[in-house]
Amino acid sequence: MFKRDTYMERRRKLREAVGEGLILICGNDESPMSYADNCYPFTQDSTFLYFYGIDRAGLFGVIDLDNNKEYIFGTDFTIDDTVWMGPLSFLREEAKKCGIEETGEISDLTALLSEAKSQGRRIHYTSQYRHLNIINLSKWLNLGVDEVNENISEELTYAVVNLRNVKTQEEIAELERATNVTREMHLAAMKYAKPGMKEHEVAAKVAEAAKKFNATHSFFTICTRNGQTLHNHNHSNTLQEGDLLLLDCGARLDNGYCGDMTSTMPVSGKFTEKQGDIYSLLMEMYDSAEAVLKAGITFKEVHLKVCRTLAAGMVDRGLMVGDIDEIVASGAHALFMPHGLGHMIGMDVHDMENFGEKIVGYNGEEKSTQFGLKSLRLGRELEVGFAFTVEPGIYFIPELIAKWKKDGTNAEFLNFDRIEEYLDFGGMRHEGDYIITEDGYRRLGDRMPKYIDEIEEVRREAFTN
Amino acid sequence: MFKRDTYMERRRKLREAVGEGLILICGNDESPMSYADNCYPFTQDSTFLYFYGIDRAGLFGVIDLDNNKEYIFGTDFTIDDTVWMGPLSFLREEAKKCGIEETGEISDLTALLSEAKSQGRRIHYTSQYRHLNIINLSKWLNLGVDEVNENISEELTYAVVNLRNVKTQEEIAELERATNVTREMHLAAMKYAKPGMKEHEVAAKVAEAAKKFNATHSFFTICTRNGQTLHNHNHSNTLQEGDLLLLDCGARLDNGYCGDMTSTMPVSGKFTEKQGDIYSLLMEMYDSAEAVLKAGITFKEVHLKVCRTLAAGMVDRGLMVGDIDEIVASGAHALFMPHGLGHMIGMDVHDMENFGEKIVGYNGEEKSTQFGLKSLRLGRELEVGFAFTVEPGIYFIPELIAKWKKDGTNAEFLNFDRIEEYLDFGGMRHEGDYIITEDGYRRLGDRMPKYIDEIEEVRREAFTN
Repeated sequence: MFKRDTYMERRRKLREAVGEGLILICGNDESPMSYADNCYPFTQDSTFLYFYGIDRAGLFGVIDLDNNKEYIFGTDFTIDDTVWMGPLSFLREEAKKCGIEETGEISDLTALLSEAKSQGRRIHYTSQYRHLNIINLSKWLNLGVDEVNENISEELTYAVVNLRNVKTQEEIAELERATNVTREMHLAAMKYAKPGMKEHEVAAKVAEAAKKFNATHSFFTICTRNGQTLHNHNHSNTLQEGDLLLLDCGARLDNGYCGDMTSTMPVSGKFTEKQGDIYSLLMEMYDSAEAVLKAGITFKEVHLKVCRTLAAGMVDRGLMVGDIDEIVASGAHALFMPHGLGHMIGMDVHDMENFGEKIVGYNGEEKSTQFGLKSLRLGRELEVGFAFTVEPGIYFIPELIAKWKKDGTNAEFLNFDRIEEYLDFGGMRHEGDYIITEDGYRRLGDRMPKYIDEIEEVRREAFTN
Repeated sequence: MFKRDTYMERRRKLREAVGEGLILICGNDESPMSYADNCYPFTQDSTFLYFYGIDRAGLFGVIDLDNNKEYIFGTDFTIDDTVWMGPLSFLREEAKKCGIEETGEISDLTALLSEAKSQGRRIHYTSQYRHLNIINLSKWLNLGVDEVNENISEELTYAVVNLRNVKTQEEIAELERATNVTREMHLAAMKYAKPGMKEHEVAAKVAEAAKKFNATHSFFTICTRNGQTLHNHNHSNTLQEGDLLLLDCGARLDNGYCGDMTSTMPVSGKFTEKQGDIYSLLMEMYDSAEAVLKAGITFKEVHLKVCRTLAAGMVDRGLMVGDIDEIVASGAHALFMPHGLGHMIGMDVHDMENFGEKIVGYNGEEKSTQFGLKSLRLGRELEVGFAFTVEPGIYFIPELIAKWKKDGTNAEFLNFDRIEEYLDFGGMRHEGDYIITEDGYRRLGDRMPKYIDEIEEVRREAFTN
């Protein structure tokens, strides 16, 4: 938790931006896994965490703009809770830590909402992704469950996004810490993975590394010899000599800040010539992104720059043919990189994705529907203080290659004979976390092994232990 | 997944038990952590897993008893899903593996439900714990969200519970496997924990041990030097010389079967005399449970037997005074063990707790409201094939002791002067998983270190590495 003034200042700016009505910020409740009392690890809503810093289930913040009052509502603890959960602080004490004096029960909240509604005052809330809160708002605001997310406040959403998009120095320090724990997770895997191991044995080392720092995972760890499958959650394969292992994972600190990094390592310790050749193209793509990163450029331009590097490399290698600009305009290169170059990062790994990419990633503009570009989560102009990932990848996805060949998709730019020599290649990606500074940019965290020689050097430890 | 006939036979028995109408079995969907696309690890509903064995999100099983038809409904995959999630089997193929020929989209399901409703036929479903399914059923059956769990089918619930309560040999083999992975989690901690470590460093080893076997956690790991807090989820303390470390954790295999064990270990490697004395009473309690376990006895009797052992031990040590039977009738002993002796275990760690303890643990009878007994989840008569935990504990909870002393609760049986000599003692528990057999009972899994000398022997490894 930051100091009290931080939260008070954030809420002051929010009040100023929204103006009038009543702001309702819904915290998360516990999320049942297989029955009501067996829950997933509690994850607080990041907007609630941003404005109040309280990591506790079932709370709701209200800012009454018209009467200049602030409240936190929730259920308080009893002696029974102490027996099961240990000494607990009362809601009133927690609220004081973020500068809120008024607390109440959920019945007080519903009474306040009813009164505001009867006075015809606007109740501002943002898009809800937890079904319990959809049910709650449906009851409290007398809306159908499908109407809850149709009546969100755009003013409030933009106000929150504009505040959270720009990371302060104290936030950047926490992102840096999250990135460094994430780095430890990657190094643990690099120093451990060997042919013959199951993917889940490596994932176990990664889990241990996070937990050692009392961190959880900012998303489900991808740890796979089939990197060509972009969101591969399977961990059951055995690593083979000659495989590439793709690891995409991130730490989430107990204060919510997230890391998100990807590395690709040769299971045998050294890249083959063919792997090294494609990996060096991946590094060209990566470096071409860094070369243009700065405030004022749109992230879509950065993405397209990387796509041109990819297309040029594929033309050089005979896998594509034609003019680079025409290739990138057609989207043919997306056969090899169907995803976007990156996304905002903060207290969510895709920061504020719950508000929708259009507002967060595109500042209200429409996103392209072209294959590849439609998966670019961030397209807007970068500003000082924006934090985001850079994560180019190169994949050979047999099912997609077969489909495009059959359908003749972008056939004029693709040399399928050459491409099919890579059908068993798999996929690779490298990802780092960035902040836009006055001077340009900074990659967060200590240096990660990135180039071939750096990765092979760390990998040696797996074989000498 | 078991073989096809297993699922077909389970559903045949279910059809026979319920008779007429239409049975709707809701699978789980993904559960959003911080936005719709960032989900907790998927956990399938265990009843869906029991009857269909398909570990995939967003599915619904229907058994039309009146027309003798069976279906599975859900959304099928597209080529886009292949890019992101890899080669996937179609729902039709998955359904065939459990003997279902008819599959359809969600729109087919809602049409079927509407038709059945308009014909005045009974739609049987059980209690829902996932809020998305509450919303789904509310829409599909035209009920208010609060009405969904008021209209459950008791016939279906009892039919499912009566089937799932009795574990078959193939299920017992899986429970045994889950128990053995759980045992590895405990041994990993015992061989690792040392003074000066953080609790989360030990929890990290436990997480690694589970993941090594491609298992997840059947519930949030308790790993604490404050064992007197029963559901302590804090992992941030540093282990001190002289502490007891209480570890309560379990593996969940990828087919759903769960383990659940607790051990208590001295952080310094050896129990102090005072710790050893109370631990030996804990073992007396444990062994007194085993002495009476068999088909035909109610688990409430076993619990009360253990409570008498506890009370007698506390009288011997001068912490309690009076007649053992009177003490146990009053509930005074529950100051030292406020929880129940155990619970059913299976594909949920508290098996089928989503149906309510009254049906699962008490076969429809009312549960006691006395402090201590009110937390006994299982009270009914044991039958051959029942799987459950045995988990006596002894705790000194400062807040509870202070409250009882102040309020004079059960004062005639309690020697607070002696009790207060244990205010910094903490808590201890030992837990194993059991099955009722024709001959009596069997503790599942390989031998766990349990007695003082066994635990201290394993602990030596932590100090020799």
